[in-house]
Amino acid sequence: MDQQLIEKVMQQVSDELGIQQTDSRSERCGGIGLTEFVGTAIGDTIGLVIASVDPLLVDVMKLGKYRSIGIIGGRVGAGPQIWAVDEAVKATNTEIISVELPRDTKGGAGHGSLIYIGAEDVSDARRAVEIALQALPKYFGDVYVNDAGHLEFQYTARASYCLEKALGAPIGRAFGMTCAGPAAIGTVLADIAVKAANVEVVGYCSPAGGTSYSNEVLLTFTGDSGAVRQAVRAAIDAGKKMLGALGDEPKSTTTPYI
Amino acid sequence: MDQQLIEKVMQQVSDELGIQQTDSRSERCGGIGLTEFVGTAIGDTIGLVIASVDPLLVDVMKLGKYRSIGIIGGRVGAGPQIWAVDEAVKATNTEIISVELPRDTKGGAGHGSLIYIGAEDVSDARRAVEIALQALPKYFGDVYVNDAGHLEFQYTARASYCLEKALGAPIGRAFGMTCAGPAAIGTVLADIAVKAANVEVVGYCSPAGGTSYSNEVLLTFTGDSGAVRQAVRAAIDAGKKMLGALGDEPKSTTTPYI
Amino acid sequence: MDQQLIEKVMQQVSDELGIQQTDSRSERCGGIGLTEFVGTAIGDTIGLVIASVDPLLVDVMKLGKYRSIGIIGGRVGAGPQIWAVDEAVKATNTEIISVELPRDTKGGAGHGSLIYIGAEDVSDARRAVEIALQALPKYFGDVYVNDAGHLEFQYTARASYCLEKALGAPIGRAFGMTCAGPAAIGTVLADIAVKAANVEVVGYCSPAGGTSYSNEVLLTFTGDSGAVRQAVRAAIDAGKKMLGALGDEPKSTTTPYI
Repeated sequence: MDQQLIEKVMQQVSDELGIQQTDSRSERCGGIGLTEFVGTAIGDTIGLVIASVDPLLVDVMKLGKYRSIGIIGGRVGAGPQIWAVDEAVKATNTEIISVELPRDTKGGAGHGSLIYIGAEDVSDARRAVEIALQALPKYFGDVYVNDAGHLEFQYTARASYCLEKALGAPIGRAFGMTCAGPAAIGTVLADIAVKAANVEVVGYCSPAGGTSYSNEVLLTFTGDSGAVRQAVRAAIDAGKKMLGALGDEPKSTTTPYI
Repeated sequence: MDQQLIEKVMQQVSDELGIQQTDSRSERCGGIGLTEFVGTAIGDTIGLVIASVDPLLVDVMKLGKYRSIGIIGGRVGAGPQIWAVDEAVKATNTEIISVELPRDTKGGAGHGSLIYIGAEDVSDARRAVEIALQALPKYFGDVYVNDAGHLEFQYTARASYCLEKALGAPIGRAFGMTCAGPAAIGTVLADIAVKAANVEVVGYCSPAGGTSYSNEVLLTFTGDSGAVRQAVRAAIDAGKKMLGALGDEPKSTTTPYI
Repeated sequence: MDQQLIEKVMQQVSDELGIQQTDSRSERCGGIGLTEFVGTAIGDTIGLVIASVDPLLVDVMKLGKYRSIGIIGGRVGAGPQIWAVDEAVKATNTEIISVELPRDTKGGAGHGSLIYIGAEDVSDARRAVEIALQALPKYFGDVYVNDAGHLEFQYTARASYCLEKALGAPIGRAFGMTCAGPAAIGTVLADIAVKAANVEVVGYCSPAGGTSYSNEVLLTFTGDSGAVRQAVRAAIDAGKKMLGALGDEPKSTTTPYI
């Protein structure tokens, strides 16, 4: 009993952090006997495709010209999924239909995600979903969590269509993000980031504006790729100190990449 | 100590699922010494009445002509409460004043609920609340949960005023719903449902439209009662497979009824 | 191992309640080596200052004329933080810039908070944040919780600028609040409060109106200070009975003050 008990408690602690520590299930994807299923990944994220959405749903789902869609959605995380899908649309013949941000993270301070990817051919949609699922662990690398909240940092040298659709990123330019919950920490991170390097602000989101009432302040910015990366990096250390003052030392969910 | 510890851990696991497994408290309702109290039921749901709402509150609460109200509200679940109250209004001389959907489920992906029932006489309001509390376990029957999320399916052969107010159901007609969180699963369920039978879409809700930023996609539909039931049933098996790919096998909260 | 296990379980139970039972960290504030840091307090609340917000952020943060700001934000609780900051603005040369209410409480039914305080001089902003952090435990005193939800009651003999900004309180007058989640309980508390004394309603908030989709009904009122206090007190006992019907006896988070 003791071992089971420990596992249950550990699972609970892990759930509280809002993150699955590992997910080997994505390696056995396709085994559930449903043609729509592609795979799963970290953050209770599932990847699905619909080869031809029923005509009754095309309008209510606002699919535009697309009938073949890929779907990426998770309970925990929006930034990582958005960055991962951005990588997927760069590598495939697909477009972003919509990005929605539920208020979730399984009791955490942030968002979950629901992203629709459009394609002429379902094999393209499936490929995009596969790439996004594979890329997802990377983009959880600079998500740091403890029992009080989380920090999230993202960076790309070249933003593409998913970052444009979800966060207004300028296509083809470097793009960075600082984010924290509780939101108060995110405010200070935003100030530290813009003071650290010569960047241009793209967006500022707070609980009452731009988020789905998440307990986060989020800043996005563009500029020279070196400057954007420098701004993000400057905020990481400060974020860990502030969130660490409310609990244990915040830990990377996977492996930092910035 | 060990036994207490186990109970606490079990309670936590149960809480994580967002559901009270059993609730014998509804049987000892009325015992708290407060005239407004009617009873409790599954999903941290409480039933209350106010015989005559204070005039100071009638406008801010948007009660219209009613002064006697019944109140059903829970932390976990909106669909089950809406369906249970629909049954209650059919059986009593009451009307639906309002249905509100907080973003809740105690860390889960969905909604809680707050429903005001209006009556000329408080005894009618109380009776409606009693019926709704009694019916509630039935409508948790096709709510399936695991640690990653939930599936919800509902069906009625004849929709009444609560389903009309809350979900736009056509009065007197068969009405069904598919729903899942994470939302991505709900999207595929919607497509499976409309492909399975000749139904007419009533509503489609997603995190950014029609929900209170819950991590759900929800489809409602009407049609011939056999077709509506067939559409719902087709989605149940697929839903269990998809949600099961993210965690344990999803289990019914009570006993399936569809 | 057993002792660690017990501590982890206890922590989880405490987290489920959405409240840190004690927080001695606020006494060792300033020790994290970041000039912006002021301290922490109950409810995963952090207090911060920015001496001069970067010009790039002044507009997006809607700071108006202020460059020096104090920041109070927590995962759990909005009312306590609003009341504590109200006390702080009375005692310092500061103003309230904004009050935002994320949907949070770490899986609970209510809000978190993000409050920006403006000052001509950063030392004033810092002093206000210090006072708010010190006052915060008092205003968690009439927050009562169990595993099903929470009750919150607040009272002041003289409302100031933070209560005006956040809740529309009339400056200088007595001001009270009743609140509960699940929301159904809050509805009955509102009715009990206005029937108990001669008060004037200021605001009524529910999941779909005035909250950030929290599972709460909240009533605020003004009047003679004796009447306001009497209205609040009348609701406390009824609230404990109703919430207690859904779980254990609701306990004060700190020490009741009303």
